[in-house]
Amino acid sequence: MYEYKTSVKWKGGQAADILSEEKPTLDMSAPEEFGGRKDRWSPEDLLVASVESCLLLTTLYFVEKMKIDLKGYQSEGVGRMEQTANGFRFQGIEVRIRAEVATEEDAEKMKKAVEKADKYCPVSNAVNCPVVLELEAVVM
Amino acid sequence: MYEYKTSVKWKGGQAADILSEEKPTLDMSAPEEFGGRKDRWSPEDLLVASVESCLLLTTLYFVEKMKIDLKGYQSEGVGRMEQTANGFRFQGIEVRIRAEVATEEDAEKMKKAVEKADKYCPVSNAVNCPVVLELEAVVM
Repeated sequence: MYEYKTSVKWKGGQAADILSEEKPTLDMSAPEEFGGRKDRWSPEDLLVASVESCLLLTTLYFVEKMKIDLKGYQSEGVGRMEQTANGFRFQGIEVRIRAEVATEEDAEKMKKAVEKADKYCPVSNAVNCPVVLELEAVVM
Repeated sequence: MYEYKTSVKWKGGQAADILSEEKPTLDMSAPEEFGGRKDRWSPEDLLVASVESCLLLTTLYFVEKMKIDLKGYQSEGVGRMEQTANGFRFQGIEVRIRAEVATEEDAEKMKKAVEKADKYCPVSNAVNCPVVLELEAVVM
């Protein structure tokens, strides 16, 4: 059993500090469209960030296991939220990955590594809206 | 439709920068128990942080609507993850709120505000493991 602990301290308005043990304090506010600030992380951003970064780490686990020569990795994530009869609900999270690999064989293996990450990533599996992954594997 | 966009740039090892438009860059690593650093935010921490902070903002929406005299709010969140046959899976997220209010009447209303937040919070509703809320409302 692993535990992940955070604390939230309201600062008035729609802002709060988010703390977690020795990590840097996160200065959070509502998204701009709901009265917050666009230069602060919102809960909605953090949800997308957690899914996207967990997919990286899970992919890296399989990259090592499958001995893929990975030179670079970056991704773009987007979460879409809509007003529904039950309030705002996330409709889906899309993650587009660009991976730089050494050979064509690595590029083929990379597809499998990302498929496995999709299946095993604990954060994307904790989300109940569809998480859609796209991979572009570029041989350098 | 609202969109929340983030980017992840791998930095080698189990570390990455997480970016989102004008927000400060988030220095992410795997949790310490999986080879990362305990002074960096992990995807697992960010998931708990997103649920916990969204519950604050949704509660604040109802606090305003119900004209509750709220003097202070802080919460402690914990996410629990276990190894399963399908890999690591979140088993639940618990959020304990301490709210400081002006009157007994505000304390009663606060219970309703938190119940409503539980029902309407878009992030806790995007999570498929149980999210358990506890409230201690203290009259100051």
